[in-house]
Amino acid sequence: MRRRDFFKSAAAGAVATSSLAAPAIAQSMPEVKWRLSSAFPKSLDILYGTGETLARHVAEATDGRFQIQSFAAGEIVGTMQALDAISNGTVEMTHTSSYYYTGKSPVFALITSVPFGMNARQQNAWMNQGGGIDMCNKFLANYNVYALPGGHTGTQMGGWFRKEINTVDDLRGLKFRVAGMAGQILSTLGVVPQQLAPGDIYPALERGSIDAVEFSGPYDDEKLGFQKVAPYYYYPGFWEGGPTTHFMFNLQKWNELPKHYRAALRDAAAFANTDMTAKYDTRNPMALRKLISAGAQLRPFKPEIMEASFKAANSFYEDLCTKDASFKAMWESYSAFRDEEYLWFQVAEFSYDNFMIRMMRTRS
Amino acid sequence: MRRRDFFKSAAAGAVATSSLAAPAIAQSMPEVKWRLSSAFPKSLDILYGTGETLARHVAEATDGRFQIQSFAAGEIVGTMQALDAISNGTVEMTHTSSYYYTGKSPVFALITSVPFGMNARQQNAWMNQGGGIDMCNKFLANYNVYALPGGHTGTQMGGWFRKEINTVDDLRGLKFRVAGMAGQILSTLGVVPQQLAPGDIYPALERGSIDAVEFSGPYDDEKLGFQKVAPYYYYPGFWEGGPTTHFMFNLQKWNELPKHYRAALRDAAAFANTDMTAKYDTRNPMALRKLISAGAQLRPFKPEIMEASFKAANSFYEDLCTKDASFKAMWESYSAFRDEEYLWFQVAEFSYDNFMIRMMRTRS
Repeated sequence: MRRRDFFKSAAAGAVATSSLAAPAIAQSMPEVKWRLSSAFPKSLDILYGTGETLARHVAEATDGRFQIQSFAAGEIVGTMQALDAISNGTVEMTHTSSYYYTGKSPVFALITSVPFGMNARQQNAWMNQGGGIDMCNKFLANYNVYALPGGHTGTQMGGWFRKEINTVDDLRGLKFRVAGMAGQILSTLGVVPQQLAPGDIYPALERGSIDAVEFSGPYDDEKLGFQKVAPYYYYPGFWEGGPTTHFMFNLQKWNELPKHYRAALRDAAAFANTDMTAKYDTRNPMALRKLISAGAQLRPFKPEIMEASFKAANSFYEDLCTKDASFKAMWESYSAFRDEEYLWFQVAEFSYDNFMIRMMRTRS
Repeated sequence: MRRRDFFKSAAAGAVATSSLAAPAIAQSMPEVKWRLSSAFPKSLDILYGTGETLARHVAEATDGRFQIQSFAAGEIVGTMQALDAISNGTVEMTHTSSYYYTGKSPVFALITSVPFGMNARQQNAWMNQGGGIDMCNKFLANYNVYALPGGHTGTQMGGWFRKEINTVDDLRGLKFRVAGMAGQILSTLGVVPQQLAPGDIYPALERGSIDAVEFSGPYDDEKLGFQKVAPYYYYPGFWEGGPTTHFMFNLQKWNELPKHYRAALRDAAAFANTDMTAKYDTRNPMALRKLISAGAQLRPFKPEIMEASFKAANSFYEDLCTKDASFKAMWESYSAFRDEEYLWFQVAEFSYDNFMIRMMRTRS
């Protein structure tokens, strides 16, 4: 009997006895040990910590019998290798941003965030109730992977710029460290996207061999000190309106789990998903204060730049839909859902926030 | 040995064996049967269904051994009696809006939502990471109750009005069905708050014995047909910016659960918390379209009315803080957190949503 068949029959047996008053049988709580290879270094403590939150909650809900050991990026496999490692079962699971794998298919970008996508709450709605996560998993099955949402950062910042950017012309030739689909779209406006390892960014900005860098939001950015060499801190990061990280599992390993362990994992993921966003929302305000004290100068992207980028993004998606049927299918669901969400959010949610922000400004 | 002591020792035993490789002992998966008395009728299917979601997830994560049976409001106890029933252990748990019990203490209002409070995501941040839920549970221990967040509706609508409301003067003598703290605050501006059972609202509006009614958001409101007799549909419901429902448990029953059942319940609640909001966010847009087709006329509250209400609310809170130390302690944490949240949200999150809404408008 293969290992997966054993687990399947054990799980089936457990289900069959669960309606009886007899004591739980031993097989219903088998010991399982998994490894989680995070896509994030320990220095990004909220992102990295989300994998640890999941592991702790799963252990707690299974009386310590399902143990997941968490490793930082590179400890067992690197960020860019994690998908393959999950896919071939070398490691059972990862916590990652799917868009790291945009090179394999543009659908991987859509699973995390694309320019002018949904905000965090809308992403939850699409994933949970708009068919999003099922659509993602249908696609990910091609890679032998199963996924659950694993936390949002909220709308990110637009990054750090050495000079002010006032017109679309100012984007021409701008050497901007920005990855994936955002880089592809901005390049149609003249931006020259750069790929640099994290440790190389600061010196490159300092000597001017790059002009700008996008990273994350205040809490993560504050550790990096970019304000000293690129003080203009632009917002919003319109390519990451509500990025969703995911827990990704080897599909066979997921299916082999007893049904109630899958349920424990699913609900632990739901806790971690909310908790990660709560951590960012709690720590970003103070980090933003510190950054401003340290010399960061907040700048909104000019409407001209936002509008040109929006137009460029829509052309890019239209073009991509003619070339990639998988992207087209998911984009149609995603963008239709987004349009409906903003139709409603503009009424109650947005007018409420708008008023509250205005009141906070008059008081401060 | 009392029942609670038995459970405690069984739970301790389970913890002690969990680090060994031996098969799970029978006590680690005891059968537990609970009843959940929802504060909501089945007709409010998203609210009522959130209790059922929790029950299903807990059963799934415990291999069917922890069963929670769900009852609609009034089937075993009424909405207003549920807190007492939980408190004295007649029923193990409820899913409710804490503000139904504002009569017992104004702190119960703060646990759900008060006028000009936080939005849904900020409430999650305060509850999970800002010390909110611990502060709530310290207070609720006085009532022998333990709580976990149980879903948000998002910013609600301001309700249905027979006539347009243009100035603060128009509030004078307005017979408005609005409950709790919102009613108390609006009464300082001349509103005459009304208490009416749901079934009596429509005829009262029709014959003009009340002028207006607030209820919820488009999805729940659409079932009621108020647009036929009170067509002006105002927004935002500034007294419910991000109302949080809660699962509330009898404190002893909670403590008696094996530790891993508490963990399963906590994580199932986290799933239900996100899922309820996702359901509202998914269904409200279409409901709003239907309401507008059926004659609802959307109206934003005028800035004059919002500002006067904000001022009235702040005076009310100031006054209450001098009278009620429990309220003061929680309000200081809550309002400081809210102020910080909006400081940050105005930058990336709000400017992103603002732009997206503007783009959606130009396209439609």
